[in-house]
Amino acid sequence: MIRVHARATFSPEGPFELTTIERRELQDHDVLIEIKYAGICHSDIHTARGDWGPVNYPLVPGHEIAGIVTQVGSAVTKFDVGDRVGVGCMVDSCRECNNCNRGEEQYCSNGNTGTYGAIDRYGQYTQGGYSTHIVVTEDFVVRIPDEMELDVAAPLLCAGITTYSPLRHWRAAPGKKIAIIGLGGLGHMAVKLAHAMGAEVTVLSQSLKKKEDGLRLGAAHYYATNDSDTFTKLAGSFDLIVNTVSAKIDINAYLSLLALDGTLVNVGAPSEPLPVQVFSLIPHRRSFAGSMIGGIRETQEMLDFCAEHHIAPEIEIIPANGIDEAWNRVLASDVRYRFVIDISTMNNA
Amino acid sequence: MIRVHARATFSPEGPFELTTIERRELQDHDVLIEIKYAGICHSDIHTARGDWGPVNYPLVPGHEIAGIVTQVGSAVTKFDVGDRVGVGCMVDSCRECNNCNRGEEQYCSNGNTGTYGAIDRYGQYTQGGYSTHIVVTEDFVVRIPDEMELDVAAPLLCAGITTYSPLRHWRAAPGKKIAIIGLGGLGHMAVKLAHAMGAEVTVLSQSLKKKEDGLRLGAAHYYATNDSDTFTKLAGSFDLIVNTVSAKIDINAYLSLLALDGTLVNVGAPSEPLPVQVFSLIPHRRSFAGSMIGGIRETQEMLDFCAEHHIAPEIEIIPANGIDEAWNRVLASDVRYRFVIDISTMNNA
Repeated sequence: MIRVHARATFSPEGPFELTTIERRELQDHDVLIEIKYAGICHSDIHTARGDWGPVNYPLVPGHEIAGIVTQVGSAVTKFDVGDRVGVGCMVDSCRECNNCNRGEEQYCSNGNTGTYGAIDRYGQYTQGGYSTHIVVTEDFVVRIPDEMELDVAAPLLCAGITTYSPLRHWRAAPGKKIAIIGLGGLGHMAVKLAHAMGAEVTVLSQSLKKKEDGLRLGAAHYYATNDSDTFTKLAGSFDLIVNTVSAKIDINAYLSLLALDGTLVNVGAPSEPLPVQVFSLIPHRRSFAGSMIGGIRETQEMLDFCAEHHIAPEIEIIPANGIDEAWNRVLASDVRYRFVIDISTMNNA
Repeated sequence: MIRVHARATFSPEGPFELTTIERRELQDHDVLIEIKYAGICHSDIHTARGDWGPVNYPLVPGHEIAGIVTQVGSAVTKFDVGDRVGVGCMVDSCRECNNCNRGEEQYCSNGNTGTYGAIDRYGQYTQGGYSTHIVVTEDFVVRIPDEMELDVAAPLLCAGITTYSPLRHWRAAPGKKIAIIGLGGLGHMAVKLAHAMGAEVTVLSQSLKKKEDGLRLGAAHYYATNDSDTFTKLAGSFDLIVNTVSAKIDINAYLSLLALDGTLVNVGAPSEPLPVQVFSLIPHRRSFAGSMIGGIRETQEMLDFCAEHHIAPEIEIIPANGIDEAWNRVLASDVRYRFVIDISTMNNA
């Protein structure tokens, strides 16, 4: 076992404390990564607070990980010591089912292994990126392009791929009208990515508070959803709507904004069911869909796409002792647009 | 005006009575059709009873119409007197919007004109196929293939196209696993069509009562949904599920039967909303969609496909004075699988 430092929460309420956790000794195909930056994702909070099921404390969250390879297992072929790499929301899968064979490990029929809060194939609880080091099998590690800074790379591993994958799957491209619901961590990436793919992007946000930002990030239009005229004006407009908001929304109102054959895809999941009127779907052959992160091959493609198009999340770097405060600000939607922990500050008081 | 005989209901409760209604004088592009057969669709009942909104009585339902052209307008180019033709659920649309231009008149942005219960571009209430004659613009008339009998052609104009269109849109083909929920008028056509397209078809019906029929119609498998083991056994199995049942179902249970990228498409609409758990969609990038009949070009394609593959609905022919009884049997699910009115009996007591 390798003992490493980490910031863990010991209960739903926190606070985070500096502690040590164990990483497994390197297996033949494992790489040891010295973590430089870890992004803070809203799902870290949901998981830690037990919103999505029971938690095995202490919990080290973090699935937006960027760092440097410092050691490789005897059979590793994809990475060398010194390589700049990333790890996202999963660290393993069965690698045998149809979905894994298609490169869609996130949809592994036997369940992928989450980067934290899961039990891996060695029977160990996984612990995430709010830590100095992590051991991951090389097949679940991606390469960060040379021209991309590590701090902005981190949030791409969840917020980036979570929005990139549905945009690609539902074919964002020139001539397509795409709406993004919510301008938060995921939403601001969705705007940048859809714009870079050539689509005409509209932000649908509760108010016009962040309008200037939205337009600067690449949106052509920005509407407030607390204005009911918005729904009249935009009826039947969009080929694709990406809903980045996990709170319960009036799903039928948003479905009415889809054009013929349009899809509204949720990348977040409210805990309550959404009451869908089938008459919201039938008259324009609309679809209501869900999408979850992306496969490893697609995650690499996304990083390369971002490097090529000079796309990076807007981040605020915080020290490791600032996690509790940052979480409170995430819950208050007071972040533009992603907190990233500087792991070099791990041991600061 | 042309006065013709029809069977109309004068109130939500009925009964049907023999009456006369007016059809417009032929416009340049109109054809006059002598109706030979009219199918009875469950939506006739919903509409007549006011389930879908206020009704202007007397109402003549019927949107599964097969007959012979007996007169053509001065500018008609597509049909001649004597042609065997059909009319389905719509008799007009704006013919100017994007959707009409794409041949998807059923999704006309300005609303298509229903075959009955609608107001047409002349300001007249439309009346349907439980009648001896109808006047329709040639663009909304389809040709019934020579080798197809008129009685079995009638139900194809709604039950046929309503199931054919989503099967084509979501690419029913060899290698695809498709489930059909419900084995009624629509369901039995869906089974025949999906089987003819080469898919592996499974019927999901409340009980095993019609199992023998289902297998005879082309299903490879037949499961009872009142057996909860069915949902465990078939989890993650299907590429496409066509839900032909308009009653409220446990939508999340059915969504769990979809494989990666699978779609559940409703062709009927329950009046209550269906509470969709987004976690039913996200883990396999599933979609919940709706589909409504099909365009005119596609309706012709469907008729030709049915002729080529010797596909016909299973029908029970009734006289015009038997409509009330037939409706009661439809409501009791006591029909295998479609009632068709023999219009030559229109004036019988």
